[in-house]
Amino acid sequence: MYRSHTCGELRQENIQQTVTLSGWVQRSRDLGGMTFIDLRDRYGMTQLVFNLEDNSELCMQARKLGREFVIQVEGTVIERSSKNKNMPTGDVEIVVTSLRILNGSKTPPFTIEDDTDGGEELRAKYRYLDLRRNAVLQKLKLRNKVALETRKYLDNEGFMDVETPYLIKSTPEGARDFVVPSRMNGGEFYALPQSPQTFKQLLMVSGIDRYYQIVKCFRDEDLRADRQPEFTQIDCEMAFVEQEDILNTFEGMIKHLFQEVKNVTFDGAFPRMTYADAMHKYGSDKPDIRFELEFVYLTELAQNKGFSIFDNSEAVIAINAKDCSEYTRKQLDALTDWVKRPQIGASGMVYVKFNNDGTIKSSVDKFYSQEDLQAWGKLAHAEKGDLLLVLSGTLEKTRKQMNELRLHMGDELGLRNPNVFKPLWVMDFPLLEWDEDSQRFFAMHHPFTSPKAEDLHLIDSAPGDIRANAYDLAMNGVELGGGSIRIHDRELQSRMFDLLGFSKEDALAQFGFLMNAFEFGAPPHGGLAFGLDRLVATMDGSDSIRDYIAFPKNNSGRDVMIDAPSPLDESQLKELQITLDLK
Amino acid sequence: MYRSHTCGELRQENIQQTVTLSGWVQRSRDLGGMTFIDLRDRYGMTQLVFNLEDNSELCMQARKLGREFVIQVEGTVIERSSKNKNMPTGDVEIVVTSLRILNGSKTPPFTIEDDTDGGEELRAKYRYLDLRRNAVLQKLKLRNKVALETRKYLDNEGFMDVETPYLIKSTPEGARDFVVPSRMNGGEFYALPQSPQTFKQLLMVSGIDRYYQIVKCFRDEDLRADRQPEFTQIDCEMAFVEQEDILNTFEGMIKHLFQEVKNVTFDGAFPRMTYADAMHKYGSDKPDIRFELEFVYLTELAQNKGFSIFDNSEAVIAINAKDCSEYTRKQLDALTDWVKRPQIGASGMVYVKFNNDGTIKSSVDKFYSQEDLQAWGKLAHAEKGDLLLVLSGTLEKTRKQMNELRLHMGDELGLRNPNVFKPLWVMDFPLLEWDEDSQRFFAMHHPFTSPKAEDLHLIDSAPGDIRANAYDLAMNGVELGGGSIRIHDRELQSRMFDLLGFSKEDALAQFGFLMNAFEFGAPPHGGLAFGLDRLVATMDGSDSIRDYIAFPKNNSGRDVMIDAPSPLDESQLKELQITLDLK
Repeated sequence: MYRSHTCGELRQENIQQTVTLSGWVQRSRDLGGMTFIDLRDRYGMTQLVFNLEDNSELCMQARKLGREFVIQVEGTVIERSSKNKNMPTGDVEIVVTSLRILNGSKTPPFTIEDDTDGGEELRAKYRYLDLRRNAVLQKLKLRNKVALETRKYLDNEGFMDVETPYLIKSTPEGARDFVVPSRMNGGEFYALPQSPQTFKQLLMVSGIDRYYQIVKCFRDEDLRADRQPEFTQIDCEMAFVEQEDILNTFEGMIKHLFQEVKNVTFDGAFPRMTYADAMHKYGSDKPDIRFELEFVYLTELAQNKGFSIFDNSEAVIAINAKDCSEYTRKQLDALTDWVKRPQIGASGMVYVKFNNDGTIKSSVDKFYSQEDLQAWGKLAHAEKGDLLLVLSGTLEKTRKQMNELRLHMGDELGLRNPNVFKPLWVMDFPLLEWDEDSQRFFAMHHPFTSPKAEDLHLIDSAPGDIRANAYDLAMNGVELGGGSIRIHDRELQSRMFDLLGFSKEDALAQFGFLMNAFEFGAPPHGGLAFGLDRLVATMDGSDSIRDYIAFPKNNSGRDVMIDAPSPLDESQLKELQITLDLK
Repeated sequence: MYRSHTCGELRQENIQQTVTLSGWVQRSRDLGGMTFIDLRDRYGMTQLVFNLEDNSELCMQARKLGREFVIQVEGTVIERSSKNKNMPTGDVEIVVTSLRILNGSKTPPFTIEDDTDGGEELRAKYRYLDLRRNAVLQKLKLRNKVALETRKYLDNEGFMDVETPYLIKSTPEGARDFVVPSRMNGGEFYALPQSPQTFKQLLMVSGIDRYYQIVKCFRDEDLRADRQPEFTQIDCEMAFVEQEDILNTFEGMIKHLFQEVKNVTFDGAFPRMTYADAMHKYGSDKPDIRFELEFVYLTELAQNKGFSIFDNSEAVIAINAKDCSEYTRKQLDALTDWVKRPQIGASGMVYVKFNNDGTIKSSVDKFYSQEDLQAWGKLAHAEKGDLLLVLSGTLEKTRKQMNELRLHMGDELGLRNPNVFKPLWVMDFPLLEWDEDSQRFFAMHHPFTSPKAEDLHLIDSAPGDIRANAYDLAMNGVELGGGSIRIHDRELQSRMFDLLGFSKEDALAQFGFLMNAFEFGAPPHGGLAFGLDRLVATMDGSDSIRDYIAFPKNNSGRDVMIDAPSPLDESQLKELQITLDLK
């Protein structure tokens, strides 16, 4: 061992002890005849002292140490004359008696501090140095703790960790697969799993009635800021359960994690809301319910008053921004510009100010009387001092846009406290989603989700109205996870593939093994998967998953540190019997 | 919940309780007016009783249930008149009052019993049914337990679980990579990791001084019976440690696992042996030390007596099979045939019987006097009743062959008790291995392994003689894991790449990020990786890793259950900008 203690460990009770520490030089200061060095490791920081008078050679050596040098020191723990209450080791310091340089360091390209001077790209290239920063290290520590507590909880609940394969089979349904050419089976490819879905269902057929795995999944999608080509799922499945059992089990897991990791207690059961209600009230299937700003449907009140934009809209939706009637022209213009950005896509925004003096002022005064606006205000529970923000258009688009505006206002008004956690089960998702482009239904969750028994009669007449036994856990506007009760009947599964436009042959070729399995005694089962990256980020009050991944990829799917992907040797391509056909 | 209890749970104290069970019909027997069904789930088996007289309709229903039907029953727990001491639930049975068929089952293609009638191929195709067999389920349970206890131990020792990426960069060094074409970066490829080696070293540079991960690794090798294209490693790394610290930490881990999982205690420290000694005594770098049969070098004694085969051999090596002098001609012929099989490749075998009557009889009596053979016997500590088996040839080949013969004799003589566990640290591996074909050195462990400081002077004169700070943990003839102290100095790492025949450009292109990292304060570090599949198999006294993998691949790298790999859609290939070039 290169140390007797870590740099975060020494306290008053260690005074007079001879200790050996190893770590990185965080900073050094020369004060008259003294040199002070802050020595850093994963566990903390300890102050080292060198006295020019007592040992000039050693002190001169210390003065030559640069930032991020790796050193080993031996010395005696003494009490600090000026204690540092901000450091756990701030009561003591080490009078160094011997110093050994374990490795030198060039000057790092950015400072290893909480607030670094390195830009994102530079830090990505030198991710191994970025990880030395305490702010980043703490995120990985949090992730480690969440993962282990997840395992402890699930093990305690009788779940078995079973590894499923990474080299599986490509299926065109869903997102795009990453594929792996097989050298031993020329012309054939494996696919990397988008999730272990079919395997965990097979495990239920096998009788392993409680399965979990913390597992990497892969999707070859065009990346957005909060997506990664590889991501980690807490993947779970249970047999002989009803939906209620699954919700209870994983509500328990989330409560356990917040208790153990964040010391946050949730009182009572998590609230629940149907998908239909969530869309109606918040225009989102993962509403942030830390704050109100519920949708108010003005459609009926606002139409047939001569304002053609509203008259031609399927929906006129408002939110009531409490105490915002004194928003300035400039603020309102900024909001209008914000909703008109292409990412939101609204064509405009109407406002109605309920002034403190009792008057009402709106951007559509030309078309609406004070009584008209009063009626709007009544519906929206607007009081003096409030501000209505109104968007209109088709129902679906307006809801989406208003969801964005609502979250934006939540941010502006400071209603989204990152230290407040509001879980919400969103229930009864639709089974199918109609895709205009391909003129066919897609599975909203996945093709293995079971329809609600009471909606099954709609299967021919109105399949789009069938609700599924599917549920998501949302928190603070983020989808933490989701799942469903699965189909366990071959006939029904086959029916689902029909609905989704699979030919019998395709369904068999791709999922025959699962449908066959259903013929040998498949138990009723269901499950759920959480996104670990997102769960950890949400627990930490952040919305960037990338920060919680040790070695993330950038928006082009590149690892800029190791410079991957990269071209292959010609011989490798040849062995795989593939050639490039670059456009 | 479809059950109030599992099928492994009910005992005497539950008598008179009304319970609900769910599970699979293992077997049913009709005895006069009674029908008995064994209901099975992951937790065990419980006997159900139906009485024709009491409830004829229910009993008739029960008589129609086939094997592997999934049913739910309600009933009352009663004491069994004839108790079954072999079943944990054997004191009780359930008088069923209601029965619900949750799913039917076709007759399975093989019996779901410990001793099944299904062949290997059939069981692989229906792996989800194979996993229902208790013998297989127990293996997955064991694996689950070993993995969790590994995490507990390492977490307790301050190790952090950090996930490293799966989509990395291909390097031609080592085994063949599986590669993944990047759609977003046309013409470029990711590689799947053969191990997280460089990433864990970067984590050490980052200051995460104790890292672990239970992680899938990938090697595109031609498969042998005990190899899989994807396998699982317990991957670990530590900084600020010396070799001794690593050995102690992981010796502790193995002791912990055997204690917690097998209730096996190891007394004292694990024995250690140098690589050189292991090769000399056993012809193997992972000797099975459950038994002796140490190599005896007869070379000097056996040469120059007119037996040209020995005279022309670099080495003449014997093992002394105790108490085997009465081996018959047939047995000796069988052994000779065994060593002459192409897998072993010996050209013949010489035996010397030390008969109980004091005479000595050998297959080379023509060339050697009784005194000559007496001298052999003395060297080999042979006594009356013993049998020497002798192989000869080049040193390297003869050692390899004799290692195989030794293990074979260990099996034949019942010396390899699967319930006896003998760990052994094999130390001081050579740094380099000369490859005749390519006329160059390869790294025996990997290019990041550090040479022993005291051997560094050989770097120009005799690089093949340099020993490395590298160690393996062997147990019962199996390599459980291995590791090394790494290089943490850019200059030395660069030197190693030279030795291995890398051009400066190639070394930089492939490992530049690591060498650069070494310039920013890399701490001394080292680590170790265990093969989880093999560890679990060894703990279970088995040598087939495939049995311990939920969904293994066959010898052609195929998953015959899901039928992967498989051809891709033309459109997928097009998106990836690759074409097939099949020979």
